[in-house]
Amino acid sequence: MKRTIFTEEHKAFRAMIRDFVAKEITPHFEQWERDGLVPRELYRKLGALGVMGFDVPEEYGGPGRTSFTYQVVLAEEASRAAVSFGAQSLSTGIVLPYLLRLGNEEQKRRWLPGIVEGDVACIAMTEPGTGSDLAGIRSRAELSEDGTHYVLNGAKTFISCARNARYCVVVARTSPATEENRRGGLSLLVVETDSEGFAYGRKLDKIGMRTSDTSELSFTDVHVPVENLLGEEGKGFTYLGHNLVRERLIIGVTAAATATAAIEYAKEYTQQRQVFGKPVASFQNTKFVLAECATEVEALQATVDKGIELEDRGELSPADAAKIKLFGTDVAGRVIDKCLQLHGGYGYMLEYPIARLYADTRVSRIYGGTNEVMKGIIAKDLGL
Amino acid sequence: MKRTIFTEEHKAFRAMIRDFVAKEITPHFEQWERDGLVPRELYRKLGALGVMGFDVPEEYGGPGRTSFTYQVVLAEEASRAAVSFGAQSLSTGIVLPYLLRLGNEEQKRRWLPGIVEGDVACIAMTEPGTGSDLAGIRSRAELSEDGTHYVLNGAKTFISCARNARYCVVVARTSPATEENRRGGLSLLVVETDSEGFAYGRKLDKIGMRTSDTSELSFTDVHVPVENLLGEEGKGFTYLGHNLVRERLIIGVTAAATATAAIEYAKEYTQQRQVFGKPVASFQNTKFVLAECATEVEALQATVDKGIELEDRGELSPADAAKIKLFGTDVAGRVIDKCLQLHGGYGYMLEYPIARLYADTRVSRIYGGTNEVMKGIIAKDLGL
Amino acid sequence: MKRTIFTEEHKAFRAMIRDFVAKEITPHFEQWERDGLVPRELYRKLGALGVMGFDVPEEYGGPGRTSFTYQVVLAEEASRAAVSFGAQSLSTGIVLPYLLRLGNEEQKRRWLPGIVEGDVACIAMTEPGTGSDLAGIRSRAELSEDGTHYVLNGAKTFISCARNARYCVVVARTSPATEENRRGGLSLLVVETDSEGFAYGRKLDKIGMRTSDTSELSFTDVHVPVENLLGEEGKGFTYLGHNLVRERLIIGVTAAATATAAIEYAKEYTQQRQVFGKPVASFQNTKFVLAECATEVEALQATVDKGIELEDRGELSPADAAKIKLFGTDVAGRVIDKCLQLHGGYGYMLEYPIARLYADTRVSRIYGGTNEVMKGIIAKDLGL
Amino acid sequence: MKRTIFTEEHKAFRAMIRDFVAKEITPHFEQWERDGLVPRELYRKLGALGVMGFDVPEEYGGPGRTSFTYQVVLAEEASRAAVSFGAQSLSTGIVLPYLLRLGNEEQKRRWLPGIVEGDVACIAMTEPGTGSDLAGIRSRAELSEDGTHYVLNGAKTFISCARNARYCVVVARTSPATEENRRGGLSLLVVETDSEGFAYGRKLDKIGMRTSDTSELSFTDVHVPVENLLGEEGKGFTYLGHNLVRERLIIGVTAAATATAAIEYAKEYTQQRQVFGKPVASFQNTKFVLAECATEVEALQATVDKGIELEDRGELSPADAAKIKLFGTDVAGRVIDKCLQLHGGYGYMLEYPIARLYADTRVSRIYGGTNEVMKGIIAKDLGL
Repeated sequence: MKRTIFTEEHKAFRAMIRDFVAKEITPHFEQWERDGLVPRELYRKLGALGVMGFDVPEEYGGPGRTSFTYQVVLAEEASRAAVSFGAQSLSTGIVLPYLLRLGNEEQKRRWLPGIVEGDVACIAMTEPGTGSDLAGIRSRAELSEDGTHYVLNGAKTFISCARNARYCVVVARTSPATEENRRGGLSLLVVETDSEGFAYGRKLDKIGMRTSDTSELSFTDVHVPVENLLGEEGKGFTYLGHNLVRERLIIGVTAAATATAAIEYAKEYTQQRQVFGKPVASFQNTKFVLAECATEVEALQATVDKGIELEDRGELSPADAAKIKLFGTDVAGRVIDKCLQLHGGYGYMLEYPIARLYADTRVSRIYGGTNEVMKGIIAKDLGL
Repeated sequence: MKRTIFTEEHKAFRAMIRDFVAKEITPHFEQWERDGLVPRELYRKLGALGVMGFDVPEEYGGPGRTSFTYQVVLAEEASRAAVSFGAQSLSTGIVLPYLLRLGNEEQKRRWLPGIVEGDVACIAMTEPGTGSDLAGIRSRAELSEDGTHYVLNGAKTFISCARNARYCVVVARTSPATEENRRGGLSLLVVETDSEGFAYGRKLDKIGMRTSDTSELSFTDVHVPVENLLGEEGKGFTYLGHNLVRERLIIGVTAAATATAAIEYAKEYTQQRQVFGKPVASFQNTKFVLAECATEVEALQATVDKGIELEDRGELSPADAAKIKLFGTDVAGRVIDKCLQLHGGYGYMLEYPIARLYADTRVSRIYGGTNEVMKGIIAKDLGL
Repeated sequence: MKRTIFTEEHKAFRAMIRDFVAKEITPHFEQWERDGLVPRELYRKLGALGVMGFDVPEEYGGPGRTSFTYQVVLAEEASRAAVSFGAQSLSTGIVLPYLLRLGNEEQKRRWLPGIVEGDVACIAMTEPGTGSDLAGIRSRAELSEDGTHYVLNGAKTFISCARNARYCVVVARTSPATEENRRGGLSLLVVETDSEGFAYGRKLDKIGMRTSDTSELSFTDVHVPVENLLGEEGKGFTYLGHNLVRERLIIGVTAAATATAAIEYAKEYTQQRQVFGKPVASFQNTKFVLAECATEVEALQATVDKGIELEDRGELSPADAAKIKLFGTDVAGRVIDKCLQLHGGYGYMLEYPIARLYADTRVSRIYGGTNEVMKGIIAKDLGL
Repeated sequence: MKRTIFTEEHKAFRAMIRDFVAKEITPHFEQWERDGLVPRELYRKLGALGVMGFDVPEEYGGPGRTSFTYQVVLAEEASRAAVSFGAQSLSTGIVLPYLLRLGNEEQKRRWLPGIVEGDVACIAMTEPGTGSDLAGIRSRAELSEDGTHYVLNGAKTFISCARNARYCVVVARTSPATEENRRGGLSLLVVETDSEGFAYGRKLDKIGMRTSDTSELSFTDVHVPVENLLGEEGKGFTYLGHNLVRERLIIGVTAAATATAAIEYAKEYTQQRQVFGKPVASFQNTKFVLAECATEVEALQATVDKGIELEDRGELSPADAAKIKLFGTDVAGRVIDKCLQLHGGYGYMLEYPIARLYADTRVSRIYGGTNEVMKGIIAKDLGL
């Protein structure tokens, strides 16, 4: 069905991004996959395009674009080409909103201009053994005697995009949890990654998402100036998770775009590939499988687009976003799997984009809250 | 997600219909199911409500409502209550549009006012042995020597809602098919069901949809005045199928409403039913199953609503409608099956609405073009 | 794969049963479906065949056949023809084992010869509002002052095959439940259905299984001789459920046979039915769908046959049986649904066996313990 | 269900293999994955265990074990530990049977003893652009003027396990295809991989199966002695594919073993992992998901074991094997996916075996003939 959420301005933006992807990313992407990292210069180029600081007000050097829909276009164009912008989506979509919402005037002046230009920010929550249970966090940030800085000690794991980050928002304990308030005592500290005592541990091998590094971090007596406390001390827990609606909606956007791309790849492949003297695309099974895929993706796109419209009007509920995330990643999983199968043995080779999509997409049913967590949220919304 | 396609006027209309259903239909519906038929008076009452002649211009006694969205509301309210309006949707949604599009001025004056008041019209295409292959139709309508009427002979099967119909649009052969034009020679005749020689054969037992009769018909020298020819002679084939986009969209609308109702029934049942001392609804499996159902239905509703908007603007393509029909009926099938399962043994008893929904909904993957036919249409649209 | 569990004797037995079905059941079955009951004479004929009293020792008039495999053959032949033997499988497979295991010498002499000849026995557990929670049973059987009989009062619902039954094993409370032992105080009484005060309530309409009546029962001061107490007073709860392994295995056997039959029906239909000038069977979609069905059914048959072998050796665990029941009914559900779809509109008409199979099979995921209950059993067996 | 196909001797063999895996493979496997290759010495060790030359008669140095069931045990033990024996299964299970069946006495004496000790043999069929259509092969082997050797030229792609192979069975054209016989003119040549002109091209990156190298090969005027022709010239096409029943059965065996292992990994993980203060394994969703997995795997195992029994008796048909391959790889795909999901974010990290199983198993629905090819075979067997 005809999409109705984009203006002419969006279309021009999309053309620019598509051009950038074709020239600056696609030719190098296989190499970056092997490296397990995109080069840091990419973020400067993305900064120059104005996409590292979406939503940053002009007074802090931002582009003054405020509609969420541009981020949608960006995510769609990356997915369409089966590439990624490395840390961009995490930094801009997930971490930057914390700085915008919680940062004071001085902090914004200090950090935002650089971020707009391409400084990457990551966030460190999970610790070995704690998983998604924030109450179990054991990293400690103790105020120095002179009250000028915190001394941070601890370890984190599963931290995305830390290698190229300039800033890391660390969730740490500034006072002990109490019996009554297991979630109390956590604070958010913005740590510069070149601080003394901030160290990278193992880089974890993943099934896919290879240009997005996942690492262990350790903090040994890292001195963090008190000026780098984000928001109020002890309120870390309540700050976290405020941006989940958008995060989950963007996962749905990406799912739709990725699944759409998968269908395109499968169409091209089966139309050109001959078996028994005729194109694979001419077999009824191929037609039916692609028709099933196109149907699910059409439904997904309608759902996601409606979500975007509601979000732009501030009317998308957490349960709505949970449904979009759940439905989107389930559909993308099924569709990409079927499209890979249509590629036969080629579909298993990473030089084919469909193989990368397959390996990458698996995590989307897990991150941003597992799909089981989504079901819990949706059930609660149903009154169950 | 918040639905956005209805105005205040729709809401008032919905309230009126819901009230009508509660008073005039639900209390009698089990009996009608056993009878295999709704009483003819129902159509008079529906006529009085103004819903038998949607889209009929005021000059022919019509209500002057033209938006398709009212039919959507009507279909939703029937599904919500797990009842049906008998022949209303077929007569109004499928047969009436033929009369509106093809009828000449005299015919419209003759037929439409009665239809608005509650006369039912059905359509007879399928013949024993021909299935959906219209080219195989063998019913013959030969022009009488004096040229005043056709003499109609033949047999039809799988004819819905004929028992209570006043008119039956019969697809018959007025000249033989030729080699070059297998689809030529078919015409549409409006036959009054009390004509001499028009006979009802067996009423076919179905898995569900019991208030919607499905019959065999036979025609023995039925005299049909030439004034009852609809459109031009020999063009029957090209006339058929023009309304398929709406027919399929309404099937999608119904699927969404039915699945929504199923979730409501399952919620109520599981909240009140105790197992091992606690409500079935409190088990994680119940929660997760209903969350999955709600998620698929949310996506379906967003898709259907977008389809309605596009259709209202004349922008819904046949492939779009095919996708909505395919997705909608697949989702409804899955969701109703899961919701039935949550009812345990009660779900198998027809006195529970979920059982009726289950039995009824199975045919929706078949009628209006089987879901396999939909896949063919969608694949062609993909360029395959 | 070649089946390996049957001997020549089984083959002869199968031929006899197949012949009986073709002559005595199939020609009348549609009528019996409309009646909602098989005629009582059928059980006399089945008795004469020796299949009403499997496992009854020769001293009580039984056929002396003891292998479970004959019951397997019987279930397969009914499913294959999309008919049923009415109450036979319930009476012989589920109720008779209680009499064999718990009956004393006098009771066996009194009841078994008649059962072998065709007397039907049913069992009444569920009560309105109690569901599967036996502890909630409120039917009371109070010993008369003279100690010669119980006075039975109460109501039951969802009782299968009661209309044609001579005996009904009633689960009733002979003493109150205590806090410590909620399951105590229940006893099994064999009640003759023509006893004064034994009354049939509503016959419940079901989605399918129409020849198997499902009724409400009520007991008003029914006098049940103490000689009709089965086993010991107060031990009813522990007696129930002892036969579940076989009951669930037979459900798996039936599932396999039904799904096999569905594939046969779909093959025949699609080979003979022409669309666009060629048989439906010649389309790749038809081939692939039937190949998927055949593959699942092959796996199911191998699983069921292994279950039968282990059961014959006494080595089939409750969790094994639960897996067979769960897998079998899930596969049958999927396969029959797909085979119905290949029939197009005909598949929805009850005169086609595939339609009956569809309507009948839905309950198999519910009865014998819902598939959710099976998952609970299996999970426990996994140590979870 | 209790498995019944193994003897005491198999159990001892299994214990030996399990021990070997634990000591010689598991500790090094992560490194081998990073290397994309197992070290060549592993094959010597496997040779010493007697598992490189299954089915080789004792006169050629073979172990004299002939039952297929030992290969089953071997495949199961590798899958259980989420490791592989590198090229062993390909060399022993797929290539060696060609040598055994087609090799003449001299060839067997020359090649088999080395293979028993650990020489690896691979096979090269696919060429760039030909896919599975063998008739399109363009590699040429021309007889030299003196008739002592063939001169081989051409290119191959998707060749598994070539890097460590001593022998490569090359399918090449020794005479042109004719119109009547598109499949004629192909021969099998055993080429030593250190021959001059035999060159390795790119090593292809895959989603998984990282210790099993997949390469391009090129042949430039490679001299192959006529003594290395396998079977008769021009009969290559008819030789190929004779071993498919076993190849597909082993894929089914592996699927069952892998899926079983996945359940074990998920059980362990969820029992030890705490969420909201209780083990993930204690949630009903976890229990139900694992119960569903265990049920499908039980059915798969029963099916596979029956296939092994029939194969041991020479009674497993090609369609039987196709069903086992199709069912097995579909089940393994579903089960491993679900078990990964239960691991949350850890399931995406390759250091967890479940992640490797996920990445590895995807190809099993493609190789050994895609699952679509299986459906074609099964449909033909159904008479469609």
